[in-house]
Amino acid sequence: MLRNITCGELSINDVNKEVVLCGWVDTIRDLGALVFIDLRDKYGITQLNVEPSLFKKADLHLEYCIQAKGIVIKKEVENKNLKTGAIEVKVSEIKVFSKSAPTPFAIKDECNTSEDTRLVYRYLDLRRPVMQKNLYIRSLISRYAREFLVANGFMEIDTPTLIRSTPEGARDYLVPSRIQKGKFYALPQSPQLYKQLLMIASCDRYFQLAHCYRDEDQRADRQPEFMQIDCEMSFVEREDVLNIIEGLLKYIFKNAIGVTLPDFKRITYADAISFYGSDKPDMRYEMLIHDVTDILADSGFKAYEGKKVEAIVINGSSKLISRKKMEEDNLLAKKFRVFGVSHLKMENNALTGSIVKNIDSDKLSLLIEKLSLKDGDVVIICADSNKDKACIALGALRTHYAEVLNLTKKDDYKPLFVIDWPLFEREDDGTIVSLSNPFTRPIDEDLHYLDTDPTKIRSTSYDTVLNGVELSSGALRIHDGEVQKKVFELLGLSDEDIKERFGFLVEALKYGTPPEGGFGIGVERLAMELAKTDNVRDVVAFPKNLKAVEPMSMCPSEVPKEDTDILGLEIKHDEE
Amino acid sequence: MLRNITCGELSINDVNKEVVLCGWVDTIRDLGALVFIDLRDKYGITQLNVEPSLFKKADLHLEYCIQAKGIVIKKEVENKNLKTGAIEVKVSEIKVFSKSAPTPFAIKDECNTSEDTRLVYRYLDLRRPVMQKNLYIRSLISRYAREFLVANGFMEIDTPTLIRSTPEGARDYLVPSRIQKGKFYALPQSPQLYKQLLMIASCDRYFQLAHCYRDEDQRADRQPEFMQIDCEMSFVEREDVLNIIEGLLKYIFKNAIGVTLPDFKRITYADAISFYGSDKPDMRYEMLIHDVTDILADSGFKAYEGKKVEAIVINGSSKLISRKKMEEDNLLAKKFRVFGVSHLKMENNALTGSIVKNIDSDKLSLLIEKLSLKDGDVVIICADSNKDKACIALGALRTHYAEVLNLTKKDDYKPLFVIDWPLFEREDDGTIVSLSNPFTRPIDEDLHYLDTDPTKIRSTSYDTVLNGVELSSGALRIHDGEVQKKVFELLGLSDEDIKERFGFLVEALKYGTPPEGGFGIGVERLAMELAKTDNVRDVVAFPKNLKAVEPMSMCPSEVPKEDTDILGLEIKHDEE
Repeated sequence: MLRNITCGELSINDVNKEVVLCGWVDTIRDLGALVFIDLRDKYGITQLNVEPSLFKKADLHLEYCIQAKGIVIKKEVENKNLKTGAIEVKVSEIKVFSKSAPTPFAIKDECNTSEDTRLVYRYLDLRRPVMQKNLYIRSLISRYAREFLVANGFMEIDTPTLIRSTPEGARDYLVPSRIQKGKFYALPQSPQLYKQLLMIASCDRYFQLAHCYRDEDQRADRQPEFMQIDCEMSFVEREDVLNIIEGLLKYIFKNAIGVTLPDFKRITYADAISFYGSDKPDMRYEMLIHDVTDILADSGFKAYEGKKVEAIVINGSSKLISRKKMEEDNLLAKKFRVFGVSHLKMENNALTGSIVKNIDSDKLSLLIEKLSLKDGDVVIICADSNKDKACIALGALRTHYAEVLNLTKKDDYKPLFVIDWPLFEREDDGTIVSLSNPFTRPIDEDLHYLDTDPTKIRSTSYDTVLNGVELSSGALRIHDGEVQKKVFELLGLSDEDIKERFGFLVEALKYGTPPEGGFGIGVERLAMELAKTDNVRDVVAFPKNLKAVEPMSMCPSEVPKEDTDILGLEIKHDEE
Repeated sequence: MLRNITCGELSINDVNKEVVLCGWVDTIRDLGALVFIDLRDKYGITQLNVEPSLFKKADLHLEYCIQAKGIVIKKEVENKNLKTGAIEVKVSEIKVFSKSAPTPFAIKDECNTSEDTRLVYRYLDLRRPVMQKNLYIRSLISRYAREFLVANGFMEIDTPTLIRSTPEGARDYLVPSRIQKGKFYALPQSPQLYKQLLMIASCDRYFQLAHCYRDEDQRADRQPEFMQIDCEMSFVEREDVLNIIEGLLKYIFKNAIGVTLPDFKRITYADAISFYGSDKPDMRYEMLIHDVTDILADSGFKAYEGKKVEAIVINGSSKLISRKKMEEDNLLAKKFRVFGVSHLKMENNALTGSIVKNIDSDKLSLLIEKLSLKDGDVVIICADSNKDKACIALGALRTHYAEVLNLTKKDDYKPLFVIDWPLFEREDDGTIVSLSNPFTRPIDEDLHYLDTDPTKIRSTSYDTVLNGVELSSGALRIHDGEVQKKVFELLGLSDEDIKERFGFLVEALKYGTPPEGGFGIGVERLAMELAKTDNVRDVVAFPKNLKAVEPMSMCPSEVPKEDTDILGLEIKHDEE
């Protein structure tokens, strides 16, 4: 080793020790009679105390990579901001490993440089301690995920990443085959089919930190390639899988950032929509949605007649609600295809607002009683013939007001499972579509609806939600050939379709499929929660930007014509 | 859980216990008055003792996936071949989860079915216990690699797998970009450039179980996608890296298969060629190559005059050497572009063979003395103006005779490092080429040759070799801009070339590069050693065949025209 200690370790107990440190010149303070240099490596910063003559000889500048030998001495005044702030190293010898050109931005946590520039010089950006911390937190996720899963009998199996393209889900990235010109591999969107095959192969408990790919137009929180903690287990019921997810996430939070997650609540999809207006409710605050149909649908107000009427109460915020705010709320609600929302304020023990005059006064009293309204409270009401739509519109306002009122604390964690999702949805044209994938297992008690009312069937799907963010989703899979056949029929899939889309999996299902289920947890999403950042690129070492370009290497890039020729491909140039 | 114990756990201590088991029907022995069923899961086999009426009702067949409830009873006669052979389960209830069609081959370790069929039904092939064991051993590699590396301060960082295509090395797999039509990502052949960038980014100790890709014509021991334990570390010298490799491999062998590897020998590339005729010598046996130039180049035999003359002794094998065998040996040697080899036999205290008459008798006596020849020994001699060529030809014969004489024991492990490789090679046309990559650091003491005799420079490269197999290779990297510039010049790379080929890395090298180095270990190759198989497909869950096709899903496959249209690509159809 070219050092005998790192820059983050020395303390007052090391005084008089001879040390050899390696790192980068972080700051230089030239006091004339003495020069102080902060030497930085991955592990921290140590102050070097350098004679001017030595400093001059070494000709040091910022970000030079050097080795320094010397003796640990006690600092006259301790630097309380630095872990090693009690000591400094009186340097006797300096070796410059390599020089550095002036960096395009300072290597400090605070950085006002545009993200594009940071990505071009990512190797400098990653020297910033905050970025090192982000990479570290991400590395702890896979470390502790593996530790927990192995301890629970899961075996890591690598599934292929050059696979068959299927028309399911998002768009595949394609990889042209050279040996079979005109044919393509696809990069996996997830190891879904392979993990089900592994259960059929009797692998029992599988996991993988899987590379996944989606060729979508980029969103701020997505990357073309991402990683998933991917699991599948045989001979289980839903609660068995939920217990693994809960245990896994608790283990990761505890070990990676020292947070003890509370027990995970279970809530049905129907309740999540009814009470929170969201399939990923943030439970850090209450502000539940109330069904006031019984009071207001028959209150004299024509607009509510025969509708489902839903309400949320924003406590003590009547001062916030201007005409402008009401209009903004209306605009937000309308995004969810409702007619709009109405605001009522509780003032002097009575409700005020433009719609009050239309509502019978006894109904107003009932409303005050039911919602326990106090002076200063605001009620926002939404009515629609479709209850879910009204709730979802109010759910968006609920989230909005939680932010306005600062109810979302970053270090408050309220995890839950959303269960009992509908298996199917009926489209406007009457056709039935699957809410997840056609292998998702229905809840046993609902199987009888397969022949009568399929949209009533609940699925075994489960989502894991933390503070309004979906961390994971999964389901049990169908193992019964008869049920699978009926589901395919309901989805209107012909034998031809089935063969084309899932041929090899359906073939495999003939040979003794175990009851099984699993889940996938998005690593980047989880890392963002743990690192408390809203930027997915903060938890990816070399991310792509929103144009799916990696600005440092400038990829994707053009390739020589012989490279596409050998693949039997021609690039079509747009006609002018 | 749908079971309370697995099929591999029950013992005599569990007698009278009520158990619920899940698994697949492995065998059925219908004795009329009683039916015995072996139930198999990932963990083992348990014998079920089933009443004929119950058996009839359940209508069981091979590979049905079932649940069985019952009581553990002592077997009258223990089955010593089975871990659970002391007991059986007296079954009270059977539930069939799913039926199975007759399988195309029996689910047994012994399998005469063609590999192609096994790959089509890989989910059945993987049910065979031997395949489960292979997957398990492979999973232990990544598990213990991570355990060791994390304990040694390495941090796992995921580098991108959609990267820039570079003209280095083998052919890249390309991924067309949809957003920037006509441009391509490449899948990485290794994370080489990224791991050097991570060191520049001050990440200090990085590792990754990295997915790597090479679009090569398939060889029996290669897959288009493979995995690498990829490491890089800063502020180190060569021995520091070698110690990590040695520690890592010892840890994996110990924990995965209980083998204590001996300490790793170090041998220079020059010695490996001189004494073993190979850059990956198998050290499980001696049979060294002897330089007998001093005796035979001037022995009266014209054919050896002025040549380097090399010899190996095959002890006590003169009976093996027929005229036909000699011709075969000659053919094998000629593959290495030498004129051929000559055989001498030691019989009745004298050497015999066709060339004996050409050689002065005192030289023959010297040869007998130098090689300590005894009756029955065979000497094979090769002469060439290029010593290395003669050695390499004899090295191939050395390997061949070790197999013939059964000197290669599967459970004998002789690991070593081959060091001090040449940095450059001079091509026949006089140009200088790099033996590894242009960033490989020369050995400091040889730096002065940069200006005088570059082919004399030794590099810091190291290969890890186990029993004739290359498990790993690596090197220290150049951190000194001046040295890097000279190496580029010697390789005849223009500034343009450099920018095109490694632009972003060369830019990064300007900002304070630490002295650093690393290595990559092929996971499949290592898994083959641990699982004692010569077939790489035995240690890959869903492998490609020699045509780079995955026979189960039949990928690569054709894709709809709109999928290539959206990428701006046209498939060229061969002209007739």
